[in-house]
Amino acid sequence: MSTINQTRSITTVKSIIYSQHGDPKDVIKIHTYTLNEPKNDEIILKTLAFPINPSDINQLEGVYPSKPEKTLKYGTNEPSAIAGNEGVFEIYQIGPNVSKNFKIGDRVIPLGANFGTWTSHNIALEKDLIKLPSDLSIVKSATISVNPITAYQLVNNYGLIKGDWLIQNAGTSAVSQLVSQIANVKGINVISVIRDRDNFDEIAQKLIDQGAKKVISETENSNRDISKEISSLTNGKLKLALNSVGGKSSSNISRKLVENSTIITYGGMSKQPVTLPTSLFIFKNLKSIGYWVTEITKKDPSSKIHAIKELIKLYQNNQLKELEVVENIWKFDEFNDEEIKKLVEIALDNVSKGKQLIKIV
Amino acid sequence: MSTINQTRSITTVKSIIYSQHGDPKDVIKIHTYTLNEPKNDEIILKTLAFPINPSDINQLEGVYPSKPEKTLKYGTNEPSAIAGNEGVFEIYQIGPNVSKNFKIGDRVIPLGANFGTWTSHNIALEKDLIKLPSDLSIVKSATISVNPITAYQLVNNYGLIKGDWLIQNAGTSAVSQLVSQIANVKGINVISVIRDRDNFDEIAQKLIDQGAKKVISETENSNRDISKEISSLTNGKLKLALNSVGGKSSSNISRKLVENSTIITYGGMSKQPVTLPTSLFIFKNLKSIGYWVTEITKKDPSSKIHAIKELIKLYQNNQLKELEVVENIWKFDEFNDEEIKKLVEIALDNVSKGKQLIKIV
Repeated sequence: MSTINQTRSITTVKSIIYSQHGDPKDVIKIHTYTLNEPKNDEIILKTLAFPINPSDINQLEGVYPSKPEKTLKYGTNEPSAIAGNEGVFEIYQIGPNVSKNFKIGDRVIPLGANFGTWTSHNIALEKDLIKLPSDLSIVKSATISVNPITAYQLVNNYGLIKGDWLIQNAGTSAVSQLVSQIANVKGINVISVIRDRDNFDEIAQKLIDQGAKKVISETENSNRDISKEISSLTNGKLKLALNSVGGKSSSNISRKLVENSTIITYGGMSKQPVTLPTSLFIFKNLKSIGYWVTEITKKDPSSKIHAIKELIKLYQNNQLKELEVVENIWKFDEFNDEEIKKLVEIALDNVSKGKQLIKIV
Repeated sequence: MSTINQTRSITTVKSIIYSQHGDPKDVIKIHTYTLNEPKNDEIILKTLAFPINPSDINQLEGVYPSKPEKTLKYGTNEPSAIAGNEGVFEIYQIGPNVSKNFKIGDRVIPLGANFGTWTSHNIALEKDLIKLPSDLSIVKSATISVNPITAYQLVNNYGLIKGDWLIQNAGTSAVSQLVSQIANVKGINVISVIRDRDNFDEIAQKLIDQGAKKVISETENSNRDISKEISSLTNGKLKLALNSVGGKSSSNISRKLVENSTIITYGGMSKQPVTLPTSLFIFKNLKSIGYWVTEITKKDPSSKIHAIKELIKLYQNNQLKELEVVENIWKFDEFNDEEIKKLVEIALDNVSKGKQLIKIV
C-alpha cells in the first residue's frame, strides 16, 4: 500500500470518549481523529445508530463490572475509551484480506461487549462482527443485542416447555415486553406484574395484546387472594420467576412459584436487594440465580449468534415488535462538537422517558 | 400365638400425642395404651431418649410442612399423632420373622421423619430403622439424626474440597459447631459469624478450639474493612455460605463469597427473609438454594444411612463432640401423666436455653 493510497482513503471519525468516571455528562468528550485505509483483515465501519442503555451509563459512572480498556490509540492525551456497547454499523471500507462474507454496505453488529458504539466510525476484524440482513430496520438492528437477547435467553435457557408458566415483574419494561412476545410464540404463558397506575387497564390490555396471559398490579402481587387465583390458573406449572425489581416485588413473585422452581434476577430497578422468604428455600427448594448477557456471551459467543438468528426470524415473521425508541438525529456533516455533545446530553436527560436512540445521518 | 401368650407380653405405652395444632403446651396430651406382642416382622422399641427440636415445635404449631398422619390406632377419640421426630430406642420385643440383624437390646434410630419419638415405646419394621453401635452414648445417639446429618451434608454435598473456605452465620448454633468440626477434619476452613456479645473473645476461642479458623461478630460482618481482610485470608477460595439467620446477616456473608459461589439457607433465626444484593446474582453469578434434611432423606434414604455411618466414625475418632444438651429425666415407673406433662412443659419452656433432651429411665 502506498502512502498516496492511504491518504486518499483517510476517514475522519468523531467519537464520544471518556477517560474518567462520573456523571456521564461530565465525563464524555467529543474527540475527532482519523483512521487510515484498512490493512490486512481490518474493516472500517460507519455507524448507523446506537441506543443509550442503562448499562452504558453505569459504565460511564464506573459502577459496571464490565469495562473497555482505556487506550492512547485515538491520539488523546489521557488513556480513553469510546462509550457504548450496542449499535448497528455499515461496512464502509475493507482491508485486502477480508473474506467474501463481508462486503461494503453490509450491516453488522459487534459480537462482544465494550466495542465502543457511540462513535461515527469504528474499526474491527471479521471475527468481532455478526452480519444482519439489510432489510431489518435500523431500530431493530441497533437494539437487538441487549434487550432481545436477554429476553430470548430468559425464555429459552431455563427448561420451560410449552404449557409452562412464568411470572415477571417490571412487566412494562422493554425486556419484559419482549419476554411476553417470545414466550407466546413458544406456547409459554406469562404473568406480568406492573406498578399500580391510573391507566392500569389500558396498559394491561396492551401487554395482553402482546402475548401476556395475565397482568396484575404490584398491590395485587402482594395480596394472598390473588395467589390462590394464580395457583388455580397455572395449575402446578408456574416454574420460573423473572426479577428485575428486587425488594418485596421479588418476594411476592417467588411465593407464587411451585416447588423446585427458579427465580432469575437480571435487574434491580427498586434498588432494594433481592428479598426471598426463607421457607421457600428450605421447604419448596427454590433456587435463586442471576442472569447477565455480557458474561454469557463472553463465555460462549456462539450463544449470542444463535439468539440473533432466532430473533431475526421472529422479527421477519412479525412475532416480535420493534422496540419503542426515541430517535435523536446526529447530522454527521453538519454538527460541530458542541452540537454533538448537546445531542448526547439531551438523550441522557431523557433516558427515564424511553429508550434513547442516536441515529447518524 | 395363643391369647395367653399375647396377654403375657402386652406393653403399656405412654405417648405424648396431639390431635390439634397450636401452642405445644396446649395441644399435647399424655395418652396411655397397650401394644400386643409383635407379630411377623414387627419390632417393639423402648425409648431411651429424645430431644425437643425446633422443627418438633413447629410441627405441633402446625407451621411445619412435614407432618405425620393423624390416626385412631392408639385408641384415642380424635385422630392423633405422636409428637417428635428424633430419638434413640432399644429393641424391646421382636416378631417371629424379624431377621437376625436385629436383636433385643440393640440400639436403633428411625430412618424416616414423623416417626413419633416422644413416647415410652413405639412399634416399627426393620426397614424403618437404622442400627447404632451400643457404645455410642445415649446423647450422641438420640441427637445424631437432625443436626449432625445437616452439618455433615452441608459440608460434604456442595463440592468443597480440602483448602476451600466456607462462611456461616449463627456460629454458636449446634449445627454450626458441628459444621466447624466436620469441615476441620476434611481440611475445609470455616469462618463463623456470631452475634455481638460481652464474652465475645471467650466464645470465639471456644469455636476456634473446635475447628473454626476465624470468628467475627455480626458488626464486623457488616464492615467493609473486614471483607478485605477475609478476601486476603481466603485467597479466592471462599466458595460457600451457610445461612440460618436471614436478613442483613445473609447479605453480609454472601458479599464475601468469590464469583460462582453458593449460599445455602437452612434456617431463619432472625425471622427476616433471605436478603441478597442484586449485583451478586447478576455480576458474580451467585446461586442461592435451600437445604432440608427431611426432604433429602425422603428422596434418598441411603444418604442418611451414609451420613450416620460417617458420623459414627467421627464420634469414635473423637473428631466430633457430643452435642450439649439439658437432660430432663422421665422416670417411667414412677411418673403419672401429670408429672410427664409437667416434665415436657418445663423442657418446652427451656428450649431457648439449650437443646432439651428427655431421657427415660
